[in-house]
Amino acid sequence: MVRIAVDAMGGDGGSETVIEALGNALDSDPELHILLCGPASVQRRLEGLPESLRSRVEMIIAESVLPADASAIQAIRHGQGSSLWAATDELVEGRADAAVSGGSTAALMALSRHRLGMLPGVERPALMAAIPTTSRRVWMLDLGANVNVDARRLLEFAQLGHVGFSVLEGRQPRIGLLNIGSEPGKGPDVIREAARLIDAEPTLDYAGFIEADQVFESHVDLVVCDGFVGNVLLKSAEGAVRLMFASFQNRLKGSLCGLLARSRIRALHDMLDPARHNGAPLLGIRGTVIKSHGGSCARGVARAIELAALQARNDLVGQLEKKLWESY
Amino acid sequence: MVRIAVDAMGGDGGSETVIEALGNALDSDPELHILLCGPASVQRRLEGLPESLRSRVEMIIAESVLPADASAIQAIRHGQGSSLWAATDELVEGRADAAVSGGSTAALMALSRHRLGMLPGVERPALMAAIPTTSRRVWMLDLGANVNVDARRLLEFAQLGHVGFSVLEGRQPRIGLLNIGSEPGKGPDVIREAARLIDAEPTLDYAGFIEADQVFESHVDLVVCDGFVGNVLLKSAEGAVRLMFASFQNRLKGSLCGLLARSRIRALHDMLDPARHNGAPLLGIRGTVIKSHGGSCARGVARAIELAALQARNDLVGQLEKKLWESY
Repeated sequence: MVRIAVDAMGGDGGSETVIEALGNALDSDPELHILLCGPASVQRRLEGLPESLRSRVEMIIAESVLPADASAIQAIRHGQGSSLWAATDELVEGRADAAVSGGSTAALMALSRHRLGMLPGVERPALMAAIPTTSRRVWMLDLGANVNVDARRLLEFAQLGHVGFSVLEGRQPRIGLLNIGSEPGKGPDVIREAARLIDAEPTLDYAGFIEADQVFESHVDLVVCDGFVGNVLLKSAEGAVRLMFASFQNRLKGSLCGLLARSRIRALHDMLDPARHNGAPLLGIRGTVIKSHGGSCARGVARAIELAALQARNDLVGQLEKKLWESY
Repeated sequence: MVRIAVDAMGGDGGSETVIEALGNALDSDPELHILLCGPASVQRRLEGLPESLRSRVEMIIAESVLPADASAIQAIRHGQGSSLWAATDELVEGRADAAVSGGSTAALMALSRHRLGMLPGVERPALMAAIPTTSRRVWMLDLGANVNVDARRLLEFAQLGHVGFSVLEGRQPRIGLLNIGSEPGKGPDVIREAARLIDAEPTLDYAGFIEADQVFESHVDLVVCDGFVGNVLLKSAEGAVRLMFASFQNRLKGSLCGLLARSRIRALHDMLDPARHNGAPLLGIRGTVIKSHGGSCARGVARAIELAALQARNDLVGQLEKKLWESY
């Protein structure tokens, strides 16, 4: 049995999307139990689930809700009693094996860090997420708020990501360090120093520098970068892909060919759909916490829950702690 | 008459691509004169041009060629006698109004700065380039090697970009500052401080923070960012678009619909084609210098030459100098 605490209120789709997601996740994983955290009014909506699934959902009442753009300070000062606080509470008290929320990233990071604590030597959590590509999945970290990091921190991201990837994908990742050139002498000092540190770690499979366009060609499995740059890379690709789909649809509209191509374009769209890749682990926290994208559909939220279950079953946190002790 | 010094040897396509580009550019601009800098062997290839165009090309013999990945130091120490050095020489000596090269960005920046000098108060040149979008053109700077810049430098980019955009597009730009959130409190200190400085400049039309995905929606005309982040944004979009085109073609291959859609997909591809947007001005140099993309086709190189002519005719450098004096 694996028990996942789910914030019913994080995410733009509200509790309706989350409950639809629970249905999918419970249906495909008979060992899954859900602790659903949210206002009492949510309980009524659970009746939409078949009885066989509903019996594996326990409602944890939390009347308040943190806003989608809640800051770290707001979350810590005024978060008590909120659905997000309740979800981390289940983890702190050992009643849940993992927590999932589609709420504010800053609030989720702050509450997780504040209430669960960090693994040895890790200062702030790193957010790892999958980049939508058409071939094998590429993961990237940091996508959280770690900005202007030093070389040691980039090494730490590589170590956290190595273990995270191994647990989630079942094999060791080939690691690339994001830079503005692929030759060894390129880029700022901090990146070149990080390359030296990562390369010197015998347990890491380091592939060298990788440029932003090569990320989509899947030469590496894991891309290490500063949180600001990672955010820009991911959002830039999202923006470009969105623009292209809109243009294609516009150009093919009203034509026979457009009609014929529609299903193929949809298939490609689904393949690149962020929902297929939803669920970003917060690495370095002493507990399994997954950020779900705020705008995700039920299918995406279900995937984040599955990812949380996978991490909890494989004891990602225990493995990370072991790895971190070894490297100090 | 406008006289452009062109490096015949920069760029992956070599002198053949450059000479084809000269043909296009000379044909569409009867006032254009070219000073073509390269080895004597190039002269023979010029015979491929019609006599009416060839008479407006003067050959400047420079026997050596800098490698495509030449560093700044390499260019300054060993660049003398190279085609790139000769092109900047024509500018220094006042025989050319502008210079264009598809060679190493680092070498071009170093030689331009070293030989032409900088405008008052500008420390290093900023590279401005257009982002391929389907609607109106969005320009972005810095894309050069300015990394880890401070808030004053971001303000300088906004000032340089404002004048550059006005000259190239004939209207004043709406300026966005790249950040990882669009709300005022978001992002690192340096970005928030830069926002305050840019907003306080009465001559700049500041639109606030812009996230990487919004860049493609053309809410703003000019995006200001650090050179590392700008490079990542542009390359990430290029990589994602390349992946999508490949996937589309793969999915539609061999089908009737694929055949019907081909011309429409090609039209979209051409619209997003970097060649249409080729030519990146080096702003802050005391002279008009344009970087052409190394991998550009003849059409792209021709566009870079046209851009150089436009900048020279509108005295972009004089306008920048005036603007910079006003702001000190």
